[in-house]
Amino acid sequence: MILKPIGTIRTPFQTADGTPIQSIYGAGVEALVEIHDGYSDALADVEGFERLWLVYWLDRVGPFVPRVVPYRDQVAHGLFATRSPARPNPIGLSVVRLLERKGSVLRVTDIDILDGTPLLDIKPYVPAFDSHPDSKAGWFDATGSARTLADGRFHGHLRE
Amino acid sequence: MILKPIGTIRTPFQTADGTPIQSIYGAGVEALVEIHDGYSDALADVEGFERLWLVYWLDRVGPFVPRVVPYRDQVAHGLFATRSPARPNPIGLSVVRLLERKGSVLRVTDIDILDGTPLLDIKPYVPAFDSHPDSKAGWFDATGSARTLADGRFHGHLRE
Repeated sequence: MILKPIGTIRTPFQTADGTPIQSIYGAGVEALVEIHDGYSDALADVEGFERLWLVYWLDRVGPFVPRVVPYRDQVAHGLFATRSPARPNPIGLSVVRLLERKGSVLRVTDIDILDGTPLLDIKPYVPAFDSHPDSKAGWFDATGSARTLADGRFHGHLRE
Repeated sequence: MILKPIGTIRTPFQTADGTPIQSIYGAGVEALVEIHDGYSDALADVEGFERLWLVYWLDRVGPFVPRVVPYRDQVAHGLFATRSPARPNPIGLSVVRLLERKGSVLRVTDIDILDGTPLLDIKPYVPAFDSHPDSKAGWFDATGSARTLADGRFHGHLRE
């Protein structure tokens, strides 16, 4: 199971420290998704979608540990009950808003991704498939933190 | 960028032909997600979540082509404007409903995944992050097909 980058994500964020922890907390932040040669024809008709899933490789995270204190709580949870980036397979998933397509470059907003991140896939966001507004969300529903920006805890450059 | 399986997904579906094309079309179908040794501690607290994202390797799909006729339409679209499984990086994404956790096995429902599929990641479904019910969805919003089950078009065993 070997991945190949299909593009590069260009964002204002150079380090995890200060980067939004989810795309909703990066509302209004713009980025460019540059698609590599050979894949731009596959972008046909993305313009009709308000949002896209970006699937990408979290290329600067630290190693997987089974339990972590996530950004939005003060106590530890199992990694698979969190959205922490330090996962066994560091695959990132962000729903972003599409502003414009120019050839093989997408201009998007709502960004929580580091600059230079390798892109693996783009999937259209389809509410009928992806939207479950009333789904119970465990400890998130009783979260003890309103944090919206990351620090370095999962990337090896802790400031706290 | 090398992936390692963290588990195996056990489902009633042996071939793409007849498998639901999205998890909402597999409502009520049950499956087991068997987590490999070394990862079960990371499942702590998933029980509180009604839904989980399963990220998996589409191990039986055919090769990527830039434009495809998707299951829900009769005309071709760019691959990245579809949810077709035959992607440059065949990473599958399904939101499933969690019924029960027993140790390192999750019993889930709402399944559109082939039996034996390698699991790559589990992320909790968080409506605040993932749910955008009013997002425009391009050609899906004017779809010409009500199809809910796959055929073999993306897996090399076409019946039509």
